[in-house]
Amino acid sequence: MNALGRRLLAEFLGTTLLLATVVGSGIMGVALSRGNDGVALLANAGATAGALYVLIVLFGPISGAHFNPAVTLAMRVRGEVDTRTAVAYVAVQVIAAVVGVAVAHAMFDQALLQPGTHARTGASQWLSEGVATFGLLLTILLGARHRPAALPALVAAWIFAAYWFTASTSFANPAVTFARALTQTFAGIRLVDVPAFVGAQLAGALAAIGLASALIRPQNNH
Amino acid sequence: MNALGRRLLAEFLGTTLLLATVVGSGIMGVALSRGNDGVALLANAGATAGALYVLIVLFGPISGAHFNPAVTLAMRVRGEVDTRTAVAYVAVQVIAAVVGVAVAHAMFDQALLQPGTHARTGASQWLSEGVATFGLLLTILLGARHRPAALPALVAAWIFAAYWFTASTSFANPAVTFARALTQTFAGIRLVDVPAFVGAQLAGALAAIGLASALIRPQNNH
Amino acid sequence: MNALGRRLLAEFLGTTLLLATVVGSGIMGVALSRGNDGVALLANAGATAGALYVLIVLFGPISGAHFNPAVTLAMRVRGEVDTRTAVAYVAVQVIAAVVGVAVAHAMFDQALLQPGTHARTGASQWLSEGVATFGLLLTILLGARHRPAALPALVAAWIFAAYWFTASTSFANPAVTFARALTQTFAGIRLVDVPAFVGAQLAGALAAIGLASALIRPQNNH
Amino acid sequence: MNALGRRLLAEFLGTTLLLATVVGSGIMGVALSRGNDGVALLANAGATAGALYVLIVLFGPISGAHFNPAVTLAMRVRGEVDTRTAVAYVAVQVIAAVVGVAVAHAMFDQALLQPGTHARTGASQWLSEGVATFGLLLTILLGARHRPAALPALVAAWIFAAYWFTASTSFANPAVTFARALTQTFAGIRLVDVPAFVGAQLAGALAAIGLASALIRPQNNH
Repeated sequence: MNALGRRLLAEFLGTTLLLATVVGSGIMGVALSRGNDGVALLANAGATAGALYVLIVLFGPISGAHFNPAVTLAMRVRGEVDTRTAVAYVAVQVIAAVVGVAVAHAMFDQALLQPGTHARTGASQWLSEGVATFGLLLTILLGARHRPAALPALVAAWIFAAYWFTASTSFANPAVTFARALTQTFAGIRLVDVPAFVGAQLAGALAAIGLASALIRPQNNH
Repeated sequence: MNALGRRLLAEFLGTTLLLATVVGSGIMGVALSRGNDGVALLANAGATAGALYVLIVLFGPISGAHFNPAVTLAMRVRGEVDTRTAVAYVAVQVIAAVVGVAVAHAMFDQALLQPGTHARTGASQWLSEGVATFGLLLTILLGARHRPAALPALVAAWIFAAYWFTASTSFANPAVTFARALTQTFAGIRLVDVPAFVGAQLAGALAAIGLASALIRPQNNH
Repeated sequence: MNALGRRLLAEFLGTTLLLATVVGSGIMGVALSRGNDGVALLANAGATAGALYVLIVLFGPISGAHFNPAVTLAMRVRGEVDTRTAVAYVAVQVIAAVVGVAVAHAMFDQALLQPGTHARTGASQWLSEGVATFGLLLTILLGARHRPAALPALVAAWIFAAYWFTASTSFANPAVTFARALTQTFAGIRLVDVPAFVGAQLAGALAAIGLASALIRPQNNH
Repeated sequence: MNALGRRLLAEFLGTTLLLATVVGSGIMGVALSRGNDGVALLANAGATAGALYVLIVLFGPISGAHFNPAVTLAMRVRGEVDTRTAVAYVAVQVIAAVVGVAVAHAMFDQALLQPGTHARTGASQWLSEGVATFGLLLTILLGARHRPAALPALVAAWIFAAYWFTASTSFANPAVTFARALTQTFAGIRLVDVPAFVGAQLAGALAAIGLASALIRPQNNH
């Protein structure tokens, strides 16, 4: 396997396992928690954080562990990947995210793909996604500069917090958002609500890229 | 942007996101937990700890990541910032805290600013704030000496514990206290209760500054 | 005590304490949580993760801290232990796991060994075990290469996530699976369901060994 | 203040804050969790772990951060403190533990000292305390050898697990046990049950000291 092949395989495995975790832990959380969705979201957020920490450690040295088109966009803007690689990354992320949802459904004996029915729309939801993705990209961009070895823990901690403090439970990832339109479980979203979520996520990401560069660039001149 | 501008921007972003987390995760926790406020406080404490860890890593190298007038006071007493900078820090912290509350409200489709109605008063509450802030400042002052790289995790762990073991859920921050007087949700406090909280916090902070210096100063003579 | 004796003692202590934690925290979780199994599984997963982190730090430098025949198999395949040692490890792991279950029962004043009655069977359960063990072995094999000092935290984080995102709550360990057939509490499984679980676990482990070597081997040529 | 004075002050502050956390978070957990003691124990265990992590980082470099007569005993057996210092440590730990309970009660507006009424007795409870303390001491003795910088996190993780997997919720500390006989809240114990708990703790500690030395000593000969 050549270097690009290994990188895409790493993105594929990481994104698949991430989505299996997000969707699977949502199903399990609801199944066990007798209607207390607070307990289900604690489980969902804790499991997602745990998986993110592991997957970024495992695949970071191979592919950068983007698992997220908004992250790949930021790396493209900063010139850390070329356009062809970025396009391949995003394609693999979307496919892997769908596979991950299907794996979760299979583990819980459900229809593999289910058109999402969970309505998530309106300005407050979009603001939530913008804030969540803004914070995620700021975490990655400033974290990579100030403490790169801690990036896996930083991303995990941010997503745990953002699951709770945003009204949308923080999708913060266009590939994840699209794939979650293929489940009717706890983590789902209607397909019709996806484009606005993705738009808000990209707006948040771009704001973070700009701000990070205002905070970082002048330090280079010191 | 000059150096002071970047420092104030870092304080602004960190304090805004901290308050958005504190207030937003409280709203979400209550919304999901069917009256079990224990689950809501687990979410609130976990999300706050996660955000604090991230924000101190991201902004510590730029501004010191105070996000808290009691911390800025301690740094002023120890001569690590000058008076003009300290005043600017506190002003930005207060403004950012209010902005953060408004962001949380906007994400949850609520009135942006709401006069707080949650009564928190009496000697046991003030003792709680004194103990919480005493411990926070001791954590920062001794942690900075014994293991500076762990400060983000130390502050996060202390605040998680203090949310639970104090009767006030540990505000431990005058700017946070004032801003939380502008929400009627889980994390709120009445404006009339703010001055005594701030007084107790400053008393706890001063006790920690004195004690830390008793514990540390003689070591310099070794 | 000779070197092999110390290694086997370390495997024995670690596996015993691991099973005591898995079974004991399940009993306590159910006893306290008034039928909310979501809370019980949060406790069970959190306690297991905490114990794994500690036990791998303590015994890793002595025995490698396998505690798991699937891990010992992987180390044999990779030539890191010889066949005789591997067989001794697995024997000790199985015995220790049973002892750990008995210790948990004794702490909670229950019959020391109880034929398991919890039915766990079917393709979705086996897929769950395959995915969980695949992820665990990938974590160990890639983690050992990319960040060996973090292995205790990585394994703990993966198991926390896998408890939640798989339908089987992630046994991911043949010795653990067998021993859990000797309890009728939260963590139990019927003896008749054990062979298929173990088969799925070994399939997942072998897939991870193959994939890890595809991801890693070419890098050696750089 | 001389060196011994600083060490005793560190033991005093750490033990006081530890007990304030253990007792205070138990009170808060019960107050908020509507009878779901599983949620209360998650809070109690999480807060205790967070505080232990912080307090051991802060005071470890000053006093060794024992906070526990069983730990001081182990350090005396190993010759790391002299008898006079060990006696002073234990005296301060006991006094500080009582003060910590009183601080918790004061924060929650309760009678400062309350004769404990929570019955905790019988062989399964004593076995629990023996196992918990055995594991705690093994954690400290092997952890100090294999990864001393991680000791604060190791002790915190062990105690979190042991709160859940033992039937006694893991007191594992004679000074803590005595002081918890002075509260009638969640964390309490009857005074009459204290001696057997302490005996079981010391037995577990001695077993760990012996076993750790069997596991470690031969390595020195390599």
